[in-house]
Amino acid sequence: MIDLCKQHTMYTWAKGDAVDPIPVERAEGVYMYTPDGQRILDFNSQLMCVNIGHGHPKVIEAIKKQLEQLVYVYPGTATAVRARTAKLLSEIVPGDINTFFFTSGGAEANENAIKIARQYTGRHKILSRYRSYHGATEACMQLTGDPRRWANEPGGPGYIKVMDPRPYTYSFGETDEEKTAENLKYLEEVIMYEGPHTIAAMFVETVTGTNGVQPPPAGYLKGLKALLEKYGILLVCDEVMAGFGRTGKMFAFEHYDFVPDILTMAKGLNSSYIPLGAVGMSDKLAAHFQENVFWGGLTYNSHCVGLAAAEATIHVMRDEGLVENAAKLQHVMRSEMDRLQAKHPSFKEGRALGLFGMVDLQKNSKGEPMAPYNGAHPAMNELGKFFRDNGLFTFVRWGSFMCNPPLCITEEQLKEGFEIIDRGLEITDRAFEG
Amino acid sequence: MIDLCKQHTMYTWAKGDAVDPIPVERAEGVYMYTPDGQRILDFNSQLMCVNIGHGHPKVIEAIKKQLEQLVYVYPGTATAVRARTAKLLSEIVPGDINTFFFTSGGAEANENAIKIARQYTGRHKILSRYRSYHGATEACMQLTGDPRRWANEPGGPGYIKVMDPRPYTYSFGETDEEKTAENLKYLEEVIMYEGPHTIAAMFVETVTGTNGVQPPPAGYLKGLKALLEKYGILLVCDEVMAGFGRTGKMFAFEHYDFVPDILTMAKGLNSSYIPLGAVGMSDKLAAHFQENVFWGGLTYNSHCVGLAAAEATIHVMRDEGLVENAAKLQHVMRSEMDRLQAKHPSFKEGRALGLFGMVDLQKNSKGEPMAPYNGAHPAMNELGKFFRDNGLFTFVRWGSFMCNPPLCITEEQLKEGFEIIDRGLEITDRAFEG
Repeated sequence: MIDLCKQHTMYTWAKGDAVDPIPVERAEGVYMYTPDGQRILDFNSQLMCVNIGHGHPKVIEAIKKQLEQLVYVYPGTATAVRARTAKLLSEIVPGDINTFFFTSGGAEANENAIKIARQYTGRHKILSRYRSYHGATEACMQLTGDPRRWANEPGGPGYIKVMDPRPYTYSFGETDEEKTAENLKYLEEVIMYEGPHTIAAMFVETVTGTNGVQPPPAGYLKGLKALLEKYGILLVCDEVMAGFGRTGKMFAFEHYDFVPDILTMAKGLNSSYIPLGAVGMSDKLAAHFQENVFWGGLTYNSHCVGLAAAEATIHVMRDEGLVENAAKLQHVMRSEMDRLQAKHPSFKEGRALGLFGMVDLQKNSKGEPMAPYNGAHPAMNELGKFFRDNGLFTFVRWGSFMCNPPLCITEEQLKEGFEIIDRGLEITDRAFEG
Repeated sequence: MIDLCKQHTMYTWAKGDAVDPIPVERAEGVYMYTPDGQRILDFNSQLMCVNIGHGHPKVIEAIKKQLEQLVYVYPGTATAVRARTAKLLSEIVPGDINTFFFTSGGAEANENAIKIARQYTGRHKILSRYRSYHGATEACMQLTGDPRRWANEPGGPGYIKVMDPRPYTYSFGETDEEKTAENLKYLEEVIMYEGPHTIAAMFVETVTGTNGVQPPPAGYLKGLKALLEKYGILLVCDEVMAGFGRTGKMFAFEHYDFVPDILTMAKGLNSSYIPLGAVGMSDKLAAHFQENVFWGGLTYNSHCVGLAAAEATIHVMRDEGLVENAAKLQHVMRSEMDRLQAKHPSFKEGRALGLFGMVDLQKNSKGEPMAPYNGAHPAMNELGKFFRDNGLFTFVRWGSFMCNPPLCITEEQLKEGFEIIDRGLEITDRAFEG
């Protein structure tokens, strides 16, 4: 199985020869199982996407039912599952985001959000932040600030990257208030230089994902929305990773007292049971495209099977209180992180919002990261190997690792994960230089 | 259902207000059914994609089985269905295309083919043809020559569009041989001006799809492959539409005595039962990415459920002889087209390769198209309405309409479609000006 996969399929973001894929036979709840019976605790919901957990019988049942009813028809049709799922989304997304465009995934959701913003405003430039990942298609790579962009440059013109309120190496201020105020001044100056009338939209991950699991400082997003609105620039919140309960609210923007103009979704939307993404847009945007052609589309737009999975996933999340569970367990994750920080000198900082968590490791008491930006350290490789050998699946990247279990995890299972982490950090402690 | 879809979802390539979606309750074989019981013959396989027909029980069963086994794991794993499906593809794709990268659809397949070509060659420019459609993401829109590109310009640099061997308004020669020879001379001159060392790849639809269902003139593709090879430029065949039996061969390039470097697929790959695309690459490209990082990826790469549908679809195509059926019925479609051409003055030309068919209509005996390039004519709108009212679903575009039924269609059902077309052409005959 491993040999055939390596021989006949290409692995990504890595040299094929160096890939050592985990063989997976089945998965259930928060666990996956290898063919030789190893049980692995999924501490990253795969790619922060299987939010309800693996193999949920109700979602599988709903998919089967849809397969019996209607599998696929082209996007110019009307189907019952499309009507129901879009209406359900309009109910759970706060504010005036009531119209949805369905894609096959998150990158295509962002691709179409770019189109919507440009076609609505008649402007071309798009702002986004260096500390971001928005997908791997050519345009999404240009939205992205993460180093994965470099090999994919140059893309189209008009993609302007700006600084986060929490840059990697310097600071806009001491307090959240200062960071927000100074960053927004900086941003308004960028807008002045670029020309506000040339800028269609700004994309942000509501909570920065792979590039740090960084919740925004207090007031930042609300202030950003007001600033952009002043110049007629749309705000697009990319909640491909942060949406659908991950942060302890159904949508991450609900923490911050504002509503974006456009919301992009995927992953948790149907817990990735079937490829699906979506763009939610405010009523003013939807009204525009009643009167004007939307120049975009794709074969799998509004695919019945993906929508059936989304509808069932949303019902499962509500019926089983998974968003509430994520909010409740945030405190357990926080206290586990605090416990490990007190114990392990290599533990620099842990962040947790809902069950969206990340731990940064340090190589000395000056707080230098265990591995630099886009860099490696032997202890981090060893830590990753330890997690895998000890039945914990998560992402180890640069000097950090992720803590993003399915939202159905119990307190006991969460502690089980941190127990393995606790033991693993002895490795990085040995690399800590004092 | 229609109201909710129009209220809460966005329709594409059209003004929302003008959309009149077909309500679909269920679909089976070559027919779809509205909630009020109208039976509609699917003469376009939806978007030339449901190649095995609607609701095939064996594919539905295989999807259900996969759902019970394993739904989704991240692309860094190895799964049985990934191993089996990739191996099966390596068996059915001729030549040395033995390694596959799985995406969520055709646009993402082309996006990744661009990456593969650029990263392999270290060159940036991409050639493609004006008469083409390659998808709606930003990069795919730049590959595309079709007018749907215009509202999506400018995209990234380095996308060079060239002429087809059969341009719309002029000709490279009288015979196929002349067209091929003169077009390849033209193309070599373009390559000289652009700088061969700057060009990574050329993308072609093996058989041009939406922009005319145009099989290439004799010798063109084989000559093109040789020309590109001379300059180290990769040839990418986009068979998102033409692949998987549509032309009467499993892959369209099998008609033309050559093998491309890269083959992109989607739609027919699993008859669109689940969103899925794929890039097939030759052994030399696969070997390169054993030694070098592939800078690309997506959450739904190698999604178990889509792969299970592909595996079952390929088995159904083989077990039921669907490719052979498409080859056999080409002659029925040809003779039906010839019959209608003899009868209807507005019938200009019909093309059929396998069950890939298109009819061009003319407004006078000089052969002027009934509607100009990117244009409309009231008779064409009326024809579209007639088809719909009379239970025939197909695409009417500019001065042409499509004939692309599922490959499981019978001779009788095919004739049933042409009988409706026969009656419909009285409308365009009335608009024929002699």
